[in-house]
Amino acid sequence: MKRTSFHSLMRTVAVAALLAAPLAALAQDLQPIALPKPQTTGGMPLMDALSARKTAREFSADKLPLQVLSNLLWAAFGVNRAEMAGRTPKPGRTAPSAMNLQEIDLYVAFPEGVYLYEAVPHRLVPVVAKDVRALTNRNAAAGTAALCFIFVEDQDKRPAPPAKPQPAGAPPVKPEAAAPPRATSGEVDTGFIGQNVYLFCASEGLNAWFYGTDREGLAKALNLRPGQRVLYGQAVGYPKKK
Amino acid sequence: MKRTSFHSLMRTVAVAALLAAPLAALAQDLQPIALPKPQTTGGMPLMDALSARKTAREFSADKLPLQVLSNLLWAAFGVNRAEMAGRTPKPGRTAPSAMNLQEIDLYVAFPEGVYLYEAVPHRLVPVVAKDVRALTNRNAAAGTAALCFIFVEDQDKRPAPPAKPQPAGAPPVKPEAAAPPRATSGEVDTGFIGQNVYLFCASEGLNAWFYGTDREGLAKALNLRPGQRVLYGQAVGYPKKK
Repeated sequence: MKRTSFHSLMRTVAVAALLAAPLAALAQDLQPIALPKPQTTGGMPLMDALSARKTAREFSADKLPLQVLSNLLWAAFGVNRAEMAGRTPKPGRTAPSAMNLQEIDLYVAFPEGVYLYEAVPHRLVPVVAKDVRALTNRNAAAGTAALCFIFVEDQDKRPAPPAKPQPAGAPPVKPEAAAPPRATSGEVDTGFIGQNVYLFCASEGLNAWFYGTDREGLAKALNLRPGQRVLYGQAVGYPKKK
Repeated sequence: MKRTSFHSLMRTVAVAALLAAPLAALAQDLQPIALPKPQTTGGMPLMDALSARKTAREFSADKLPLQVLSNLLWAAFGVNRAEMAGRTPKPGRTAPSAMNLQEIDLYVAFPEGVYLYEAVPHRLVPVVAKDVRALTNRNAAAGTAALCFIFVEDQDKRPAPPAKPQPAGAPPVKPEAAAPPRATSGEVDTGFIGQNVYLFCASEGLNAWFYGTDREGLAKALNLRPGQRVLYGQAVGYPKKK
């Protein structure tokens, strides 16, 4: 290659990169994904799904059909019942959470970018147009999964501690202020959701793999708030063809 | 009642109490519970179980039939496949664990005492002949459940860190020593099992309630080793009759 054409090529690449880089990382390149209504009945009998439950770390390149994706997200942490009574009224979910804070947000990394799952109204909203699947785990197989969940705890949803000691005769503080959830309740609540994903995958013939992840790297890649804490990852996809 | 006969009765009660009290707390008063083979197929379709999943904090006094108890324990954290290959070969379980440490032990508190679930060979072995159900939660309803799970992490199962820096040219340290699981992996692994319990209960028409618990009080009541860490509780029982 001649020096001039090489330089000219590099200039073109550099200009293209300058134009493309900020765009590629912007969520507005991605459209929200309207999910079909989830199928909330059927699937494998529970004990059969528990029998088939396992971790599997190999994935084919096949994408999940939109209906399967919709069902997976609902199974993981969708709304399964109307507004619950109690101190923090919210629709009930397929997995519990400490004091019903519902503080775990499911980010979903696809090849084309990362989306946030909104259980109400059951849709995926774009976060960043970047493929972060390989960032979620040092083992390259994670980067080949149809999708990788990223479990993020929103600590801004935790109740604030009481501002100061209550004087005698003051009305009692609310229970959530008196006894905030344990610092590690986000981990437990992630486990509840992760097991829903494992069982759905067992039922649907999908592979699943839950793992520790690069928390700081992902927080940066997803432009998270300081109150958001990346916890774990979980890759999902069809098995590799034999 | 005459004074003499009352005193005589009280003496008898006191002597009986003196004889019975130390015995009552000893596990040898309890026999291991041989569980029937678990039914590892059937149950509600998975998506129906997810639809029915909820927390419910009221319990009837009915005990679980032995077959239902067997199925519940297997669903929670039973063996669902043969020895797994890899760095820590063990039979596979219905719930995953960090690095397959299988470090969560399920203690089960019944009115007559506490047992430890041994997934191999699938039985309950006595721990202490004491009713600790009410100890697991300040809300009195926990003490009325047919059983309360106590999730205990066995930190002695964690791999030891490398003893000292490796000299150049030394053989590489084992992956588990190089990267031990996170300090809070026991919490996540508890969540996986707890969700199995929730879904089994949804499928079987049982109520279930997962909660934070008195860690120090229970560690003492169960005579745990220093390496064992009480994490959470989960009460299970039939719903109250309306």
